[in-house]
Formats: sequence, C-alpha cells, structure tokens
Amino acid sequence: MNEFALGRDHARKLDAQDELGRFRARFVITEPDLIYLDGNSLGRLPVATVGRLQDAVQREWGERLIRSWNEGWFESPNRLGGKLAGLVGAAADEVVVADSTSVNLFRLALAALQARPGRRTIVTDNLNFPSDLYILQGVCRLVGPDARVRVVKSPDGIHGPVGELAEAIDGDTALVALSHTVFKSGYTYDMPALTAMAHRVGALSLWDLSHSAGAVVVGLNAAAVDLAVGCTYKYLNGGPGAPAFLYVRRDLQDLLANPLSGWIGRHEPFDFGLEYRPAPGIQHFLTGTPSILSLAAVEPGVEMLLEAGMDRVRERSVRMSEYLIALWESQLAPLGFRLNSPRDPARRGSHVSLGHDEGWRISQSLIRDMNVLPDFRQPDNIRLGIAPLYNTFEEIHEAVQRLQAVVVGRHYERYDAAQGKVT
Amino acid sequence: MNEFALGRDHARKLDAQDELGRFRARFVITEPDLIYLDGNSLGRLPVATVGRLQDAVQREWGERLIRSWNEGWFESPNRLGGKLAGLVGAAADEVVVADSTSVNLFRLALAALQARPGRRTIVTDNLNFPSDLYILQGVCRLVGPDARVRVVKSPDGIHGPVGELAEAIDGDTALVALSHTVFKSGYTYDMPALTAMAHRVGALSLWDLSHSAGAVVVGLNAAAVDLAVGCTYKYLNGGPGAPAFLYVRRDLQDLLANPLSGWIGRHEPFDFGLEYRPAPGIQHFLTGTPSILSLAAVEPGVEMLLEAGMDRVRERSVRMSEYLIALWESQLAPLGFRLNSPRDPARRGSHVSLGHDEGWRISQSLIRDMNVLPDFRQPDNIRLGIAPLYNTFEEIHEAVQRLQAVVVGRHYERYDAAQGKVT
Repeated sequence: MNEFALGRDHARKLDAQDELGRFRARFVITEPDLIYLDGNSLGRLPVATVGRLQDAVQREWGERLIRSWNEGWFESPNRLGGKLAGLVGAAADEVVVADSTSVNLFRLALAALQARPGRRTIVTDNLNFPSDLYILQGVCRLVGPDARVRVVKSPDGIHGPVGELAEAIDGDTALVALSHTVFKSGYTYDMPALTAMAHRVGALSLWDLSHSAGAVVVGLNAAAVDLAVGCTYKYLNGGPGAPAFLYVRRDLQDLLANPLSGWIGRHEPFDFGLEYRPAPGIQHFLTGTPSILSLAAVEPGVEMLLEAGMDRVRERSVRMSEYLIALWESQLAPLGFRLNSPRDPARRGSHVSLGHDEGWRISQSLIRDMNVLPDFRQPDNIRLGIAPLYNTFEEIHEAVQRLQAVVVGRHYERYDAAQGKVT
Repeated sequence: MNEFALGRDHARKLDAQDELGRFRARFVITEPDLIYLDGNSLGRLPVATVGRLQDAVQREWGERLIRSWNEGWFESPNRLGGKLAGLVGAAADEVVVADSTSVNLFRLALAALQARPGRRTIVTDNLNFPSDLYILQGVCRLVGPDARVRVVKSPDGIHGPVGELAEAIDGDTALVALSHTVFKSGYTYDMPALTAMAHRVGALSLWDLSHSAGAVVVGLNAAAVDLAVGCTYKYLNGGPGAPAFLYVRRDLQDLLANPLSGWIGRHEPFDFGLEYRPAPGIQHFLTGTPSILSLAAVEPGVEMLLEAGMDRVRERSVRMSEYLIALWESQLAPLGFRLNSPRDPARRGSHVSLGHDEGWRISQSLIRDMNVLPDFRQPDNIRLGIAPLYNTFEEIHEAVQRLQAVVVGRHYERYDAAQGKVT
C-alpha cells in the first residue's frame, strides 16, 4: 500500500502541511458537506468579490453614476488585463479583458488569417473545445470557400496528437489554434514546442488558455506565442459567464486588424469622428462599451492567484492530482474506472478524468446521492476538477470514498442510462 | 408668460399630479441635491437591482454553483429578451440579450449583407452613433472592396435627412441602418416610413434602439422591421456596460446566418459534436457563454418599465421635454442658448440638446459648481436627458435655474475653453 492510500488522517496531514491551504477560507463555502470538483467549469465565489461587486453597484453606479467612467471604469479592461497578464507570462500591455472567449477567438483568428493572405488552413485538433471549432469554422466561411479548418485526430482521445500535428502544419497553414489544456482529458500541450512548430512554417499560433489560466504555469512571452484567448470563470473564479481575455504579442499588435472595429478600440474615441482609425497597441482589439459589473467581479479572483503565486498553485495542483490518481489506482481501478487523463503530471492540467462504462449513471448518483459535484463529458468521462486554492486533500479522499460507495452499493442503477446518450 | 414659466410651485404641482411620479422612490438616490440628467447615457440604479444581484452572486453563484446553469441561467438571455420584447413591440421569441451593441450590430449587419448578395451598399446617416459607423465600416471591409457605407448627411445636423435618404436608398442598397433616436439632437425617425422605404427597393432595415428603448414607443412588428439592436444601460437602467439586445423578425431568423457561430447558438450545444449547426429561431444569434451577473442586473429595470407601461412613460417624457423647452424659451434663449433638438415632440426622443457658443465651459460649470450632471457632445451641445421614471418636473425647473445662474453669474469663465476642443 502506498503512502497515498493511508486514509483520511493522511489527507488531513497533507492539508495541514500545505501553505496554500489557508486560501480556502477566502471563498464563500455555505455547504460544508458538498465536495465541489467542478471549479474547472465554474470557480467558486471569492469572499472579496461580494464586497467588490457591492461597491461597484452601490457606490460606483448608484452614487457616482456617469462620473465613474472617468474614475476607473474606462481603464478597467486594461487594468484587469494587466493583472491577468501576470498569471500567463505576458506583459501588462499585451492582455485585455472583454467579451466572451468565442468573440475573442473570432476576432483574433480572423485577424490571423487576414495577416497570412496566401495561406488558407487553420490547423487544430479534435481535443479542442467544440465551441472553438465552431468559431473557427465560421471564420473560414467568411474568408472564402478555399479556407478550411483541419482537425487533426488524437489517436487515443487523451493525448495531444503532436506527431500528427507536425505533419499537418505546413506552408498552407495560416494559424495553429489549440487548447493549451484540453477540456476532456486534461492533456496539456508543450506550448513552446508547438508554437515553434507553427513558427517554423511561418504560421501564427493561438492558444485557448481557458483550462490553463490559474491552473498551470503559462509562459506566453517565453514561448513567443502570437495570440491567446481564455475565459475567467473557471480557475480564475470570475463568475458565471464572466468576460474573457485576449492576448496579442506586442510586436504583432499594430500589424493585426480587429474585424470588430468598435469605438472603444478607436484612436480618440471621444472625438466622435465618423471614420474608424485603430488605437495603437492592444487597445484596438477592444470593441464595445466594457461590461463594468462583470469586470469588477473578475478582479478579486485574479488578485488572489497573484498573491498565491502560480508556481505554488501549480505545485499544489500536481500534488493533488497525483494523490487522486494514487487513490484511483488502489481503490477505483479495481471497480472498472479507467484513467482518461495523462499519467505524466507535466502533460496534465488540473483536472482528472475517470472513465467508466457506467460513467453517466455514476455521475448522476454522485451528484444526487453523494453531494459530490463533478461534471460529465461524453462518452464516459467523470471529470474531477481540482481548484488548488479551495479544494483540499481531505475532499479528494472523501470524493473517492463516495465514488467507491456509488459503485459498490450499486446506487447508480436507479438512474436511466438512456439519458446520458447523445441522440 | 406661459404656464410653464410659473416657477417651482408649478413644477411641484405637475409632479404631484403625475401618476408615474411614484417610481422615483424605486431608484437608489443618495444625493438629493444632485440633478441627474444623464440617464440617456447611464440610467440610475433601481433599488430592486441591488437585491437581485446579491441573490445572483451569493445564492446562485456562491451556493448553487454549477447547478444554477440548469436552474435558469441558460435561459436567461431568452427570458430577459422575451421581457424586453414587450418594450419594443416585438414577440418574445424575436429578442435576446447578449454581448455589446457593437458586437450585435456586427453580426446582424454582416448577416444582412450576406443575405443580399448582389447588393453592396449600407445606407446610414451622419447622425448615427459613430460607434455604429465604425462597425459598419468593418463589416464592409470584410465583405469586399466594393462594399461601402454610404453616410447621408443631415442638412441641419438636427433632423434626420429623410428626403436625402429616399434618394440614396436604391437597388444597390443591401441594408438601411439608422439610429431610431439619434444621440446628439434626439431626433426620432418615423420607423414605419423609413422601413417601408428600405423594403420598397428590397433592402433590409436595421434600427439601433439604444436611445429609444424605454424612452419612446417602438413598434418593431407593426413597422415590419427586419433587424434591431440596442443597449440596456441608458433608459433601461441595466448598469454600466450592461449586455445589449438584438431583434430578428421571426420569418427572417432561419434565413440569416450568425457569422459568430458559437456554441450557445448551436443545435444541441451539449452533444459536443465537432461541426456547427445553427439552432432554429432566434437562438442561433447567440454565441458565447452568457454573462449571468450582467444579465441579472438588467432584469429589474426592464420589469419596472413594463409595469409603468411604455405609453404612459412616453406621455410623461413628452410632457417633461415640452416643459423643458418652454423654460428654455423663456429663460435660456435670451442668454444665447439654441434648441438643437426637434421642436416637434413626435420627432423627438427623451433628451433635449441645447447649443451655446460656450457649451463646453457651461457644461463644466454645471457639473462642478452646480451639481447638475448633463453631458456634452461636440461641438456645442449640452445634452439634457429626461428619464421619465425618476426625473421630476421640479428637477427640470431647478436645472434651468442653475443653467441660467452659470451664464448670468459668468461662472463658466473659470474653465478652460481649449479642453473642449477636439485636437
């Protein structure tokens, strides 16, 4: 029996030893028995966010009214972007927060295709968010009938198809667009290697960091990444549907055009001139009036991660996912659970996917009978997200006990397997 | 001397008689001396919004977490759109709330151009929001070198150039895109007449309702309007940078393609298929994950307007702007103030623009010395917005006294005229 199988006392000891454990108290936790393992889908509410939003609503909007635009609102996409840049290895003037991930992906992917006029292919993989594929397909429809999205297949559905990508990326490739950490298996790409692969053929690189920001160490500048997007409502704890971010490397900013040419991105937005002229730098990637309340809600989560430090957050995330995998091996593998995530922690983000023939029904029973919230992804994945700032070793231990109980006690059998099938 | 010049007592009598006066108590008003005449830029905070947001943050996000997506969040763009439809004369399944006005204008204008493939012109006017012109210019750049925005000029800068538009709208016109109520003068177009003008040549019509929704009676269905967009942070009191709305007439919904083809607009978004297929109806005009907290903040303002009834809101708005214009005539015109808004209330929205050679300095003095918040628009417009649900006749009377005092007492002379010049 390895050290991880030592039971609850050992889990508690791991929690007591961990210096990041103190951050859990800075989240709103109203239901102590609930084991929340879905921070990779919607992060928990930071305590500080409650007060920050109250101030934005009651003082900034209610009292200061229109005056607040000149008291910090206008700069908030940039101010927040500058802070977020510190979490992804970028400079402060390379990141802004605005719109949704899909809208940001649209504007950057379209700008990239226009910046590579002789080339007609966007290369991606089938592990990418389907939502990203839909946007890339839309971009290609706009660019013309010969533009296309080439979706490279992962042979095992778990690991990124690195060799296959190397073959697919060629002189016709305008853009390589991938999720850095993929949503289903949690596989994390080697960002410098894949970016270099794009650059070797003269293509641009675009990374979706939605499952990486706040969970793994991202070095955009170090890898010379061209473009990136990501959401703030997962590991950044920015709230449901919170505004997304975008990154454009500084030397590319004035070379790329934002097709959504809006007034916030215009040179001198308040001269009310009738012709659009882009503002210099990252500014012209903004479009409409910033969503102030949503932006305010994002700030405390980002600040907390900066305070904790991404290196330490990542270390704790790896300790936790290794612990979970050790428990899987001793307690869950014998019950038919498969590890649908990479075994190598260097290639794994902050969630672990467990496959099971009864995955759908087991996830239903976990939620309804066991007060554990994972999520489920077709066809068989029970996705267990580890948010290092608030999840605990004891929660992970307990979640595994409850998973075991669902299968041993056959609790899942009361649920309808048909509901989990895609029709 | 006409009845309006009767002074403060008369204003109080008008307030006491007006049945909508009771709504003022349902807004957060912390500074009773402040006269807020900028509700056409950022509406005041409804009292109910404070509690609604608190519930969205603390219960829906903090306690219910990811479960809230299935407890109302997913439907919120449609639910809120359905309510808002009641304010603009549309059916509930023709309006959704999402993204910014600029993003919505982009997707609908581009869809319109693609739906009229032989035609290459978007007709608009120079009274439209510059922000809308920028987006339309971006759309044309995407469509091709022969696509263009034709900006018809208003001869007097106040009234919509109806005759000139009639000449400009022709067989090459794909889309007629106008602000229903224009931001500077407050001129309101005859929506049925202009829409019919577009339809006669086979063009589509798109109205920006940002300065109309919640302020004037809008009948989208009655005028057979094809497309519309608008913001929710002006007369709808949805909060700074609140999500915008879009309208697509039902019979057009499945004929137009959203270029921002995102997962929320996809047929069966949760089957995670790799190809985009549009959902039927209004749904496929949505793109990314809805911004839940911002959407929650919009709902109470919309509900209050539905409760008040747009006919009554409009009647009060007209009474108030007529009152303000009568006061201008007797007290301000002699001091060099010009009426830069239409005199005919049927062609005027809910704000009144007063021009003055010292407009910039007067507006500065109003804000800093007199605790009146109007806004200023180049070159000489002091824009006085009337929000019928919370502004009072007494406030309007008092604002005019303060305006008079600024000029008579020469208070404006201490401000630097150069700062108001566009460089």
